[in-house]
Amino acid sequence: MAILFLTPSVNSAARWADGLRKEFEDEDIRINSGPEGDADVEFAVVWKPPPGRLAALPNLKVIFSIGAGVDHVFADPDLPKDVPIVRLINETLTTQMTEYVVMNVLWHHREMDDYAILAAAETWRHLHPPRTPDRRVGIMGLGVLGSAAGDALARFGFSLAAWTREPRDWPLGEVFSGPEGLAPFLGRTDILVCQLPLTPETTGILNARSFAALPQGAVLINAARGGHLVESDLLEALKTGRLKGATLDVFADEPLAPGHPFWSCPKVRVTPHIASLTYPDAAARTIARNIARFRAGEPLIGLVDSAREY
Amino acid sequence: MAILFLTPSVNSAARWADGLRKEFEDEDIRINSGPEGDADVEFAVVWKPPPGRLAALPNLKVIFSIGAGVDHVFADPDLPKDVPIVRLINETLTTQMTEYVVMNVLWHHREMDDYAILAAAETWRHLHPPRTPDRRVGIMGLGVLGSAAGDALARFGFSLAAWTREPRDWPLGEVFSGPEGLAPFLGRTDILVCQLPLTPETTGILNARSFAALPQGAVLINAARGGHLVESDLLEALKTGRLKGATLDVFADEPLAPGHPFWSCPKVRVTPHIASLTYPDAAARTIARNIARFRAGEPLIGLVDSAREY
Repeated sequence: MAILFLTPSVNSAARWADGLRKEFEDEDIRINSGPEGDADVEFAVVWKPPPGRLAALPNLKVIFSIGAGVDHVFADPDLPKDVPIVRLINETLTTQMTEYVVMNVLWHHREMDDYAILAAAETWRHLHPPRTPDRRVGIMGLGVLGSAAGDALARFGFSLAAWTREPRDWPLGEVFSGPEGLAPFLGRTDILVCQLPLTPETTGILNARSFAALPQGAVLINAARGGHLVESDLLEALKTGRLKGATLDVFADEPLAPGHPFWSCPKVRVTPHIASLTYPDAAARTIARNIARFRAGEPLIGLVDSAREY
Repeated sequence: MAILFLTPSVNSAARWADGLRKEFEDEDIRINSGPEGDADVEFAVVWKPPPGRLAALPNLKVIFSIGAGVDHVFADPDLPKDVPIVRLINETLTTQMTEYVVMNVLWHHREMDDYAILAAAETWRHLHPPRTPDRRVGIMGLGVLGSAAGDALARFGFSLAAWTREPRDWPLGEVFSGPEGLAPFLGRTDILVCQLPLTPETTGILNARSFAALPQGAVLINAARGGHLVESDLLEALKTGRLKGATLDVFADEPLAPGHPFWSCPKVRVTPHIASLTYPDAAARTIARNIARFRAGEPLIGLVDSAREY
């Protein structure tokens, strides 16, 4: 049997080859190989697999995403229908995302960009942000990542709420759910953090209508997927002052092209999809454990519901 | 009896008058008054009191600092010798400082200033910072503020150590102590956080010799007092690259004057002594509780050791 790693990134492929080979000493690890000799490939480990490539593996048993999201897998129109798809859940992904969210929520909360503007003018002036119990942070999505971010933010005393697909209990704040819960959720949110999976239901959810429901001067942190955001709507909302600022880690087209207005908009902080980087060594360990579970007939961790595409 | 509030800041005086009067409805609250009619002043609440002013209060029972530090009180050469001095310990001060330290440690850890430079050049590139267990954060001072910062940083998994005046146990990392512990502590510290009180022993402790003991490319976060830092030594260490950057909230002379080189140095982030702002309402409550303790013959919370000036 063999494990096939598929990615468009040459740099990443080299680092993954090392990570996988260390974890699977006795297995045949192939990187971007085939389609000849594909008959013995049982497991595919993928990031943005070439469309049609997975369908050409006759004995594929499981598809492993190397990211927390699987939208890049469902983007393949020829995706095999009956092969289980697994997203990556590992502590390293989660802790990095928590760092990113806490850091950026605190940055906006403490008005650090305003202090940077004052400092550029060599001006010493105190701003008076509210204390955390009076700062309303709203998290979209309470999956592994959204929940972890919520736990960490709660320790700072923020006033938390969340928006989820279906109603649920959450000890840390009010949960709004479904399409009818969206506007009330946004209406009480000063700092909006998107941690949703990208599915047909959530595509374009960060749009002009959502921004209009936020309080004047709210800020957006999108560390989920570029597809959640209607980019032109955000630029307009920043222009009118409806939104005060945005921190964006993900974009409709990545890498973000030189000349894209986000790069030069002073109200937008761009990071290059680094909120949570997959470390090949840690991820290969997680995948190895999951393959062992599969072979032992145990349930896979992170198994995706194909109907929901998450 | 009367309570006298002394501060050079007119803005702050107005906000304090409200806070104190709300808390002490039946007491005579005076703001920057006297020296006539001082005989009934029992308690002084102070920020940078005018030298000699406290000595002119014949029946003074306690001096309350409205900051966590008391160096601004000891700066008075005529400070009465036998009047207890109390520094402010309250949750609002502590939580704000924890926010500031965590935010800035994460900012340096995740190399956000480097990403800002890349973004200004419209360049999409991944940096590969170590994970938190491989990032060594060193805290100088394990008082109320340093301990709280340590607790919060430990939750992110950083490799922690601390430097203190005297040896002590600390469950979160190694503790180095005394003059002989300083160089080894600095030698294992990538991100240095100063949370020391300013005393004769700690004045100027952030100097060229200390910077030389840090690993190449370390960063400094000073949220303690400007007097801890030899400013010209920091500028030199940034110039040579010994230090990669610094986040400074406090300065030898505040407000930091226009034209001071820190404002325009791209490796220095200046904030205007806002890491932990005293909120008059919360602080007045803390002081009121302490006055009640004093009248009941109970020990004061935050009582300063005059020999150590902290």
